[in-house]
Amino acid sequence: MKEFEVIREFFTAQPVSRKDVAMGIGDDCALIQANNDKYIAITTDTLVAGVHFPNDASARSIGHKAVAVNLSDLAAMGAEPCWISVAVTLPEVDTEWLREFTAGIFELTEYFNVQLIGGDTTSGPLSITITAQGTVPQGKALCRNGAANGDWVYITGDVGKAGLALQAIRNQVELSPREKNAVMEALNYPKPQVLAGQIIREYASAAIDISDGLLADVTHLCRASKLGVNIDVNDIPIAEVLIDKLGEEGAARLALTAGDDYQLIFTVSDTNKVALETELSHANIKISCIGQMNKSEQINITRGDTSLSFSESGFEHFS
Amino acid sequence: MKEFEVIREFFTAQPVSRKDVAMGIGDDCALIQANNDKYIAITTDTLVAGVHFPNDASARSIGHKAVAVNLSDLAAMGAEPCWISVAVTLPEVDTEWLREFTAGIFELTEYFNVQLIGGDTTSGPLSITITAQGTVPQGKALCRNGAANGDWVYITGDVGKAGLALQAIRNQVELSPREKNAVMEALNYPKPQVLAGQIIREYASAAIDISDGLLADVTHLCRASKLGVNIDVNDIPIAEVLIDKLGEEGAARLALTAGDDYQLIFTVSDTNKVALETELSHANIKISCIGQMNKSEQINITRGDTSLSFSESGFEHFS
Repeated sequence: MKEFEVIREFFTAQPVSRKDVAMGIGDDCALIQANNDKYIAITTDTLVAGVHFPNDASARSIGHKAVAVNLSDLAAMGAEPCWISVAVTLPEVDTEWLREFTAGIFELTEYFNVQLIGGDTTSGPLSITITAQGTVPQGKALCRNGAANGDWVYITGDVGKAGLALQAIRNQVELSPREKNAVMEALNYPKPQVLAGQIIREYASAAIDISDGLLADVTHLCRASKLGVNIDVNDIPIAEVLIDKLGEEGAARLALTAGDDYQLIFTVSDTNKVALETELSHANIKISCIGQMNKSEQINITRGDTSLSFSESGFEHFS
Repeated sequence: MKEFEVIREFFTAQPVSRKDVAMGIGDDCALIQANNDKYIAITTDTLVAGVHFPNDASARSIGHKAVAVNLSDLAAMGAEPCWISVAVTLPEVDTEWLREFTAGIFELTEYFNVQLIGGDTTSGPLSITITAQGTVPQGKALCRNGAANGDWVYITGDVGKAGLALQAIRNQVELSPREKNAVMEALNYPKPQVLAGQIIREYASAAIDISDGLLADVTHLCRASKLGVNIDVNDIPIAEVLIDKLGEEGAARLALTAGDDYQLIFTVSDTNKVALETELSHANIKISCIGQMNKSEQINITRGDTSLSFSESGFEHFS
């Protein structure tokens, strides 16, 4: 099968058609209608087989995750996702694989009304690079450097399941089939916090998504804002299965250092705290307040009154 | 060296800083200022080691080419290039390689005033995916489907050198060191026809860049416009070194079927023909009229009155 037929067959039959796309797949470029009042937010993430997903991961989960990690970056900016480009490098054309892969992509793009506007298919070792774009009203974008001294630090959902799944894959922990299914679902089908991002942009001062690990990403936010933070691990919404399997200390360590959770960490002033909590509660989005920003420029992790130390700063390539 | 230090060291020290970039490298997303009057043109291209460039290609040429092929797509749309994201997958962090690679990128981005706004660095087999974005006034974008019956078909520059370079690499042809240098320069450092694209958008009806091969890309343009074309190979600006080395027939065959030339093919009505030729002549851009669109929906290649046939339709992956 030739490249162009692959593109036609699997990528053009997509569920979403947006009015702001003047030209989609099939020309030298896509053309989108811009808007003076909004910034366009752009992010790019690559997933490589054996690095970002197991070599035996299902095509559907690879497609899902490649979109999810990019939409998570848009969510962390408070942006509404609109358009994606998908560059996929494949060892061979496998129609069944492509069918599942695009199904995984389109499940998310349909849900979030995102149009696939282009991409590239090339021959080589399996990897996927997606560029996702969205829009955010000017003045509402949530950058990492916006936190102020005294702001409260929040996190959506719970953390640690994806990290536990990686431990299970490496046979570092034994899970029941039911537990394993639950944590593998968290690892392979992360849910980008798109709605949360659009709600908090009205109230929050800064945000970041957890891709490298809670500790690493909180550190990025603190450094960008030139502030420090106190976090009490008792306040971190650690998934219950972690505490069951690893005990309190092991669970906290994993929850702080493992990546791939794709929850949002955000900061909010004392003034906006109640309004933000109310809005997120109305939207049925779970959040936890885990700490407070301070002037120290230090990341101080405690359990109650006891200070803890963590040498691992989260997931980094090439480390 | 950690991933984040790599990004900081090699990608943030870039030559261009545009006013329309509200947030560049360093947050979850880049933010760009949009404009109601213009479309944003978006394109993505992946280069894989051993497929799109030789395994021993220099890092500088890989960086240059990865940007050039994307800017060529923007040129084919008549767009002004503005912003790029670079996703690079590397087997290991090699600072000398990264220095040369980013130098190759920045040579072109500086020349064309393009800002690097983000990307991703990952560990794995060498490949580069760039997403490039530009702007084009609404109503001026050059799509493939705009050609009309009777429109003249033009091409910029000359064709075939990159194809001859590939033959030399495969030892299918013997070149003098001087000839080899010239054709390798064409293969490794293609010059995207950005200025030509912005001039012709005022006059042309359709355009495409030659990435897959003259014949294949003319075919794409004809199919999209639901028309056919007559092309006389005597009118094709075949690089002289091809005729010297391969004779007239071999040169024509290679010039028609080899990819990687990154010239523009475009169509123009009889009414706009003179104005377009005058403008391009003022800008010192070489063009050749190679044929005329017709209603046949056939690609008819002749040499004078003799009809020629070509089975190869250009460069395709997975073929």
